[in-house]
Amino acid sequence: MAGIYHQVGVNVDITSVYQAITSQEGLSNWWTKTTGDTSVGSKLNFHFNEQIIEMTILELITDKKIVWQCTEKKGEWKDTIITFNLEATDEQIFINFSHTNWAEQSNLCSHCSTKWAVFMLSLKTYLETGKGRAFPDDVHINHMNF
Amino acid sequence: MAGIYHQVGVNVDITSVYQAITSQEGLSNWWTKTTGDTSVGSKLNFHFNEQIIEMTILELITDKKIVWQCTEKKGEWKDTIITFNLEATDEQIFINFSHTNWAEQSNLCSHCSTKWAVFMLSLKTYLETGKGRAFPDDVHINHMNF
Repeated sequence: MAGIYHQVGVNVDITSVYQAITSQEGLSNWWTKTTGDTSVGSKLNFHFNEQIIEMTILELITDKKIVWQCTEKKGEWKDTIITFNLEATDEQIFINFSHTNWAEQSNLCSHCSTKWAVFMLSLKTYLETGKGRAFPDDVHINHMNF
Repeated sequence: MAGIYHQVGVNVDITSVYQAITSQEGLSNWWTKTTGDTSVGSKLNFHFNEQIIEMTILELITDKKIVWQCTEKKGEWKDTIITFNLEATDEQIFINFSHTNWAEQSNLCSHCSTKWAVFMLSLKTYLETGKGRAFPDDVHINHMNF
């Protein structure tokens, strides 16, 4: 099993962070175009041109935790788990991100680790300035497709 | 044990990539001010203001592989291993980066995963444009010190 872990600190209120990760509008502004329902048990669809990645929302704890499971039928993301843990400190809000349950430490997993960092920085920028770098305006790092 | 893995693709010749990771000038342009000797068995010092991180060069295979071990006496980086594997394809050069041998998946490890992505992107930009974003001009993500 392999996993991806990132942490960024943001200087906004925690409710804004939670909204950015649980609303279609928020997600579309820092990751990619998002459709679907946003309640626990529902499916969210993340659009990357023709490719759509389906996630099922496993858990939502307001201003604290968001858990998705990738419910694609095939591919390395199948059954992987994405978690956002929000942690308030006196100084700022930490977003503790993980993408776990990968079958192995593959090249795609390494690629996605770098890309998740890019999107975590996009989330930070979106929260702090109002403008993220969602797909397809994200930082392109190589030609890998998945 | 925990580890950090990233991959970026760059559109330059492989010798330029190897030079950027094995010379003081290269390293200073995309990571941080670097002093020390650059041969196998020698120590490199990476300067972050007053803090200096010491690495011992464990292995160098020209245009292919660079391995360092952090030889700090304390802290979470102590004894961790940093590896750059260069992989040439028809399309581009892949830099497969890892920072392994962490005692645990700590907050600092997550923080460093995000920061390593920032520096891998700095390395890519340095190689492709001549100008990286080395410390202290890197992207600041939070207040964590280490």
